[in-house]
Amino acid sequence: MTTVNRQIVLAARPEGLPKPSDFQLVETAVPELTGGQFLVKTNYLSVDPYMRGRISEAKSYAESVQIGQVMVGGTVGTVVGYWGWQEYAISDGQGIERFDTSLAPMSTALGVLGMPGMTAYFGLLEIGKPKPGETVFVSGAAGAVGSLVGQIAKIKGCRVVGSAGSQPKVNYLTGELGFDAAFNYKEVKDYDAKLQEVCPNGIDVYFDNVGGSLTDAVFTQINVGARIVICGQIDQYNATRPPRGPRLFWHLIVKQARAEGFLVFQFAGRFREGQQQMAQWIKEGKVKYQETIVDGLAYAPAAFIGLFHGENVGKQLVRVSG
Amino acid sequence: MTTVNRQIVLAARPEGLPKPSDFQLVETAVPELTGGQFLVKTNYLSVDPYMRGRISEAKSYAESVQIGQVMVGGTVGTVVGYWGWQEYAISDGQGIERFDTSLAPMSTALGVLGMPGMTAYFGLLEIGKPKPGETVFVSGAAGAVGSLVGQIAKIKGCRVVGSAGSQPKVNYLTGELGFDAAFNYKEVKDYDAKLQEVCPNGIDVYFDNVGGSLTDAVFTQINVGARIVICGQIDQYNATRPPRGPRLFWHLIVKQARAEGFLVFQFAGRFREGQQQMAQWIKEGKVKYQETIVDGLAYAPAAFIGLFHGENVGKQLVRVSG
Repeated sequence: MTTVNRQIVLAARPEGLPKPSDFQLVETAVPELTGGQFLVKTNYLSVDPYMRGRISEAKSYAESVQIGQVMVGGTVGTVVGYWGWQEYAISDGQGIERFDTSLAPMSTALGVLGMPGMTAYFGLLEIGKPKPGETVFVSGAAGAVGSLVGQIAKIKGCRVVGSAGSQPKVNYLTGELGFDAAFNYKEVKDYDAKLQEVCPNGIDVYFDNVGGSLTDAVFTQINVGARIVICGQIDQYNATRPPRGPRLFWHLIVKQARAEGFLVFQFAGRFREGQQQMAQWIKEGKVKYQETIVDGLAYAPAAFIGLFHGENVGKQLVRVSG
Repeated sequence: MTTVNRQIVLAARPEGLPKPSDFQLVETAVPELTGGQFLVKTNYLSVDPYMRGRISEAKSYAESVQIGQVMVGGTVGTVVGYWGWQEYAISDGQGIERFDTSLAPMSTALGVLGMPGMTAYFGLLEIGKPKPGETVFVSGAAGAVGSLVGQIAKIKGCRVVGSAGSQPKVNYLTGELGFDAAFNYKEVKDYDAKLQEVCPNGIDVYFDNVGGSLTDAVFTQINVGARIVICGQIDQYNATRPPRGPRLFWHLIVKQARAEGFLVFQFAGRFREGQQQMAQWIKEGKVKYQETIVDGLAYAPAAFIGLFHGENVGKQLVRVSG
């Protein structure tokens, strides 16, 4: 008796924005288990902007996915791991984490209590180091990470401003999540003027998920001693030639400011602390989270591509089973 | 009886590289002193790249020099202060520092024991935080700041590599100052390849005095956890339109690295400590310094403009009297 394992494999290296045809749904048989192994069945899989880098040829901080290989990605079943875009996987337990479902529903292991949540928590608090009364500006503020960054900054007593790509998202930020101000960057022609309007006291912490010309404008509005947290640069992930822009380092000198990049894995030893704090804030109603869920493994490529069109609010997930 | 005070005033706002005609030598009378004031006579004045920013209209971290005003700048007589490009100044003691000539000759108050020395000392140690065995790369390495940065990094047990703009300077770095390697950036076509050759273990600390395309290349060679000290961007001080280049922040994410700008004044409370340490190292022969001195107030504009052509080795000074 064989069990069929449906997987999404990388079919071609994307040029620019990934196309559905860059991915392929294949059916394989789950191989026989050997001693010490167990079979895991996927309930949810996570699609995230970082995966765009993982399907490029260019060397990054991790190995590229090869053509024909199963797509990488966070996954959750009755156990949590990184077994990629497929229905089943065999594991010997390595890279698998226990998730306490008394904290929150299983899907949050890929969102507010998973990689995006830890990215927001440690990126803001350890790199951004916000102080009460400071102004924190977040780009990509309605996304999986940005929406949490803003709420944590509010908890820390900051004035919080965000940018997002639609009016419903802007309403969600100011109406639901307690942002002090937000704007739809697609409707703004003069970023400098808009930032001056919504951040009248300048910007002390910039949590950057986006990069590009919005980041250029932020640099003209930073205060002395500003911390710029470089979390993502989604604006350029699909660029087919090296992106160029104004040279920004002079601003760092004049403002005695710092720009620092990070990967969430550098805080891996403290994830337990971060998860417990986030779960506590959720329980107290201080942190809200939203998930955008599509149903069916076959829709994983479309959900991934949708990230670059801003189709998700909060964490984008694919429900595979259960 | 009046004393004539010769001064260099700003005659016009420079467009691009400053011209001698942007400055004017004027003669004024030293006014009568009132209670609590004393007259100081200039022995040396300092010309530094930062002054290019101070004669621009654009707002920076300090007030611009207005047309007709005496040029700003560090100065030394029997007392040290910031009374600018003139032979005499009246002071009530504010902004005047005592300099201990038992430490080193008077001119060093503007160099190795003054602003450039403190910039090198605190910028490297407090922002760059070099560790023994790490590779430190310095651009503008034969200048007033860079030449000291490299020597301090050697004292701290680092492998030190520098770039400069002529073969004699390169020889000076490796032959006199103990740099492990150096190159003439004007003779290098492929910065990436050259950096790989001279920094085979990558770059842990980059002390950037220059900016521009050399800095772009350094970003491709930084190690995980690299610290990039943004001290100066002389490559663009004379730019007539906003300089553009490749967007670099993705490298900060991938390498979990940090770029930080600073102004030496943020360490003002610790200058005494820095001066004593530098003086000690000079006494022990661990730090060497060089000064390029021109004679006569009238040559101050030419000496200043010469900075942008790389005419100085070490600190550029103008001897005004004595």
